[in-house]
Amino acid sequence: MTSGEDFQRDMRYVTTRITRDGADGYPVEAGRYRLIAARACPWANRAIIVRRLLGLEDAISMGLCGPTHDQRSWTFDLDPGGVDPVLGYERLQQAYFARFPDYPRGITVPAIVDVPTGELVTNDFAQMTQDLSTEWTDFHREGAPDLWPDALRDEMETVMKRVFTEVNNGVYRCGFAGSQEAYDAAYDRLWTALDWLEDRLATRRFLMGDSITEADVRLFTTLARFDPVYHGHFKCNRQKLSEMPVLWAYARDLFQTPGFGDTTDFLQIKRHYYVVHSDINPTQIVPKGPDLAGWLTPHHREELGGRPFGDGTPPGPVRPGEVVPVEASAAA
Amino acid sequence: MTSGEDFQRDMRYVTTRITRDGADGYPVEAGRYRLIAARACPWANRAIIVRRLLGLEDAISMGLCGPTHDQRSWTFDLDPGGVDPVLGYERLQQAYFARFPDYPRGITVPAIVDVPTGELVTNDFAQMTQDLSTEWTDFHREGAPDLWPDALRDEMETVMKRVFTEVNNGVYRCGFAGSQEAYDAAYDRLWTALDWLEDRLATRRFLMGDSITEADVRLFTTLARFDPVYHGHFKCNRQKLSEMPVLWAYARDLFQTPGFGDTTDFLQIKRHYYVVHSDINPTQIVPKGPDLAGWLTPHHREELGGRPFGDGTPPGPVRPGEVVPVEASAAA
Repeated sequence: MTSGEDFQRDMRYVTTRITRDGADGYPVEAGRYRLIAARACPWANRAIIVRRLLGLEDAISMGLCGPTHDQRSWTFDLDPGGVDPVLGYERLQQAYFARFPDYPRGITVPAIVDVPTGELVTNDFAQMTQDLSTEWTDFHREGAPDLWPDALRDEMETVMKRVFTEVNNGVYRCGFAGSQEAYDAAYDRLWTALDWLEDRLATRRFLMGDSITEADVRLFTTLARFDPVYHGHFKCNRQKLSEMPVLWAYARDLFQTPGFGDTTDFLQIKRHYYVVHSDINPTQIVPKGPDLAGWLTPHHREELGGRPFGDGTPPGPVRPGEVVPVEASAAA
Repeated sequence: MTSGEDFQRDMRYVTTRITRDGADGYPVEAGRYRLIAARACPWANRAIIVRRLLGLEDAISMGLCGPTHDQRSWTFDLDPGGVDPVLGYERLQQAYFARFPDYPRGITVPAIVDVPTGELVTNDFAQMTQDLSTEWTDFHREGAPDLWPDALRDEMETVMKRVFTEVNNGVYRCGFAGSQEAYDAAYDRLWTALDWLEDRLATRRFLMGDSITEADVRLFTTLARFDPVYHGHFKCNRQKLSEMPVLWAYARDLFQTPGFGDTTDFLQIKRHYYVVHSDINPTQIVPKGPDLAGWLTPHHREELGGRPFGDGTPPGPVRPGEVVPVEASAAA
């Protein structure tokens, strides 16, 4: 994960797209593809949230890998017999190797697999959620929100880029810094960005204004992991999220909105980071804290106005079989 | 530091005492002994605080080891040439070996050294501060507080014992747990005790009531290290100290009292734990956080009444040469 002293994320993904016109050979088609995610992973959590907000559960099935993995990466250890019931795989890498026998890079979630062939289609997490919004519209539920509003697209790209480089990736830059100097610089970068967000969100209910967009989904999955993991494990410890009044209220507003908190599994999140990163946590002991009850407290963000789902409506209950266990939730 | 899965502190110290009657061969005598401490260490910080509260600076000189050390333990790396100017030693172990050539146990601070012979007298930190209060009375400053009031002695022993096993040592039991199960149990023990303190201090300005005693000194040095170190490094993370309203106000009350905050060096504290414990922090990177400005905010504990120094008075300014640098303080 590291190159020299500064953390560098390998951004070379499999960029094949599933589109309405099938230009890459994979047309949009209900029942054909399977989203492979892991509740622990912030990048995969985005896809889980977007799939649920848009009501794509019937069109795209979902398989979930467990929170921990070995050198050969993500496994289906949560499934009976340790095998994904649709793909018949024990390891996600089988889908990667089915398409690219010598696939040389990391086996990452989220991934979308073509069920008939068992081959990976894409693991390009950023394009993936955008395509769920823009290419899969025929299968969206009634009342699905517009997460990529045309009128805001340019500003959204700017905001999302800064959130990605400075926050989503910024916490990793702190945690995987190869020297004190690299860490110190990463810490300053991160908190500069968090201060910017604290300011931006003081007068806006959501990142782009009155309604939830993809930009909020992308920020949320980092904020949900901040106090349980990044604050201690990655040394992002100027403050806890819960000590940033605006960001904390914003994060709770989202958390209490269907699709966000109900897809967040704090036990899997903590186990993933503290067990997998034995290079920075050699004991692999998982902290019992923090106390998570605060996530369910009133946030008062409705005083800023806004319509979380715009012209749409919230999604209904979580599908049976996709519910986060109560012991892994903020109500534990 | 560990034995099996549970952390066990080796409590076999050199128990020679310096007393008025000189029963152990070391009579109280101004100018004869040197306290060797390290600002990083909570056990040594106790002795630094008590020496200052009682005004023993002229009677007992002080040498300070740097925050980090190697396998051969504490060194005088902060002194010019890396040598203690009074003892002429580079390493504290030289005083231990001068008295016990085959000394088999840990070289610890605080230690008191007999300057004429260069030999260690004692490293028994608990007895040491008690003797500063009760044996060195002839050399106390005018207005020195009574840190061991006779009338409270029995209750004090009970409170200090619980604070020692559950809090002072309890944080280490979390940090050095050898298994998830040992950690989980240690975490529950610690927070049970912190909840007890939160309750006890809600109606008492100080641990034993209206005035500061040795019991407060012993609790303070752990609380000062809680958010900078124990919360993240030792996974004591149900809450930060700053999220425990009563304990946080109590800790700030002490911190803002002469003798406490002015002997606390947050930079040395953080460097010590994060660099020395490479078994739990293999990168040895020291976190930049937390923000410490909160230590200087109003605590409102005076509303509980009390007389911090009883019939005595606060100590005067810190001696030149013993001042904690501003960049290591809460005002940084």
